[in-house]
This record gives sequence, structure tokens and C-alpha cells, in this order.
Amino acid sequence: MDERLSTYPGPRGAPTPTDQFPPAVEAFLRRPLAAHLATVNPSGSPQQTVMWFMYEDGDFLFSTIRGRVKYRNFLANPRAIVTILDPADMFRLVAARGRLTQDERDPVAFQWALGRHYLTDEGFALAQRISPTADRVVLRLTPTHRRMAGFAPD
Amino acid sequence: MDERLSTYPGPRGAPTPTDQFPPAVEAFLRRPLAAHLATVNPSGSPQQTVMWFMYEDGDFLFSTIRGRVKYRNFLANPRAIVTILDPADMFRLVAARGRLTQDERDPVAFQWALGRHYLTDEGFALAQRISPTADRVVLRLTPTHRRMAGFAPD
Repeated sequence: MDERLSTYPGPRGAPTPTDQFPPAVEAFLRRPLAAHLATVNPSGSPQQTVMWFMYEDGDFLFSTIRGRVKYRNFLANPRAIVTILDPADMFRLVAARGRLTQDERDPVAFQWALGRHYLTDEGFALAQRISPTADRVVLRLTPTHRRMAGFAPD
Repeated sequence: MDERLSTYPGPRGAPTPTDQFPPAVEAFLRRPLAAHLATVNPSGSPQQTVMWFMYEDGDFLFSTIRGRVKYRNFLANPRAIVTILDPADMFRLVAARGRLTQDERDPVAFQWALGRHYLTDEGFALAQRISPTADRVVLRLTPTHRRMAGFAPD
């Protein structure tokens, strides 16, 4: 399989800042895509994990567990950045930087809402059996900076 | 299009540490895939960009330009993490954390080697016309910590 790309946007393809995400970007963010979430470790090194997310009213919601590195990092330094890349087009992406807060909604209900968003009935039945529910928390990233690349102008 | 997943690895799918990447992972890393590279801004917030990379002798090589945020971040704090996610399987990924150094090979020759790796002849002809060559540098990430998920045991 030749995975090489036959297009090249060059500098014109660099992510550009935006004050808010246009409708086409919001539609992209409602798809069940992988998010790369980065935080900063207490040592000053960056940390990065692949996460499910829900886009809601301009914010990004994540489900995690108390005790995970990213949760401890959030408590010490709430600054984070998330990038969502189109798996079919590496020149198409959205990035948002801001601060994490803990969202007070029911974390297990949110975990299953995420599961319903990302999984078929078969996958969801499996997740309900094996996904840990103890110590769940919901983290919310509220962007202060937004970038996007590869979307046609509205 | 239903993009939902019908499998769910659960906690068993969490990235596990490894001292070195086994052959199947190295073969994955030789594919022209998108890398998410994170560094830390002087303010203490994380920075993240999608990059092309070349895997070489256990290290990850990137082409960038002096003056870009990630290059300035590298000069102030060389700690970085890179994640490469399988675009066809979000439970399959490789992550490597360590320090960046500047590699002294010819940066423009490396830029075109990367172009040959990622682009078809048509894409490469375009890149040669429009990709900036001035102030190019090569950054090398030497991992101290490696994780992987979704690869069958050797």
C-alpha cells in the first residue's frame, strides 16, 4: 500500500488562528475522532495522551480517572492543548489551547455517553463490562487559543 | 458513514512501557504517518504540532525552521514527547518521551528526504516548488521513555 500523499499545501497549510470554530469545524469536532491531549509534568516535561472527547458549546470534555498522570498534572498546572487530526488527511486538523477545569456532571453517565458516541452497540456492550467506573472524573478544556487547517473557507 | 468502533480494549489497551521497540513497531514507525510532537512554552503551557518524522536508529528526526515556536521552545527546554497514532486504529499507537537535540546533517537534504518519504512524485514536485528551505534545522528526539499499545506480542 502506498500511503504517500499526492498533495502538499506547504506554508499555506499551516494552522491559522481563529476566534471561533466555523460550522464545518464544529461538524468535524462532533465526529468520534482521536484527540491528542498534552499537559505538563511537574518536572517540566510535556505529557501527551490519546483521548476520546466530546465537543460541547466550544469546550472539549474528557473522561479520566483520579490518579492518572493527566489528572495529577491538571491539579498542579491546568494548562493544556488538544489536537484533533483528520485520520484521512494529515493536513486537516483543529487545535485548541487553554485551561482544564473539573466538570461536576455525573462522571459515569458522561463515560457512557462517550462510549455511545465512539462505539457500536457491540463495542459499547464490551466497554460496559470492562471499562473501570471507579474514581471517574470529567475534565473540561476551555480554549483561549484556537487553530485550524485544511477546512474550506465558509 | 458510521465511524464508531466495534472493539474496545479497555484497560488492557493502555500504552505499556518498553525498553525498546520490537520489529513490528519499528516497521510501523517507518510508515509515512503523522506525528504529534509536544514541547513546553516558556509560560509553562504545553505546545503541540503535527509533524512529519523519520525514525532512525531508535530516534525521531524532524525538520523545522528557526523562529518557529517549537524551535524556540527546544532552545529553552529540550524536553519533548511524540505520539504516532495508527490512522486506521485509534487503539494502536507509539509514544516516546525524551530530549531534543539539533542534528548537524544537511537540513535541506533532510527536508527533501522527508518529502520523498511522505509524498508521491506529484506531491514532491509541488513541495520542491513551495516548501521554504531557508533557516531549516533538523531536530532529533532521543527517547528515554517508550510506550506502545495495540501491537501483537512478538
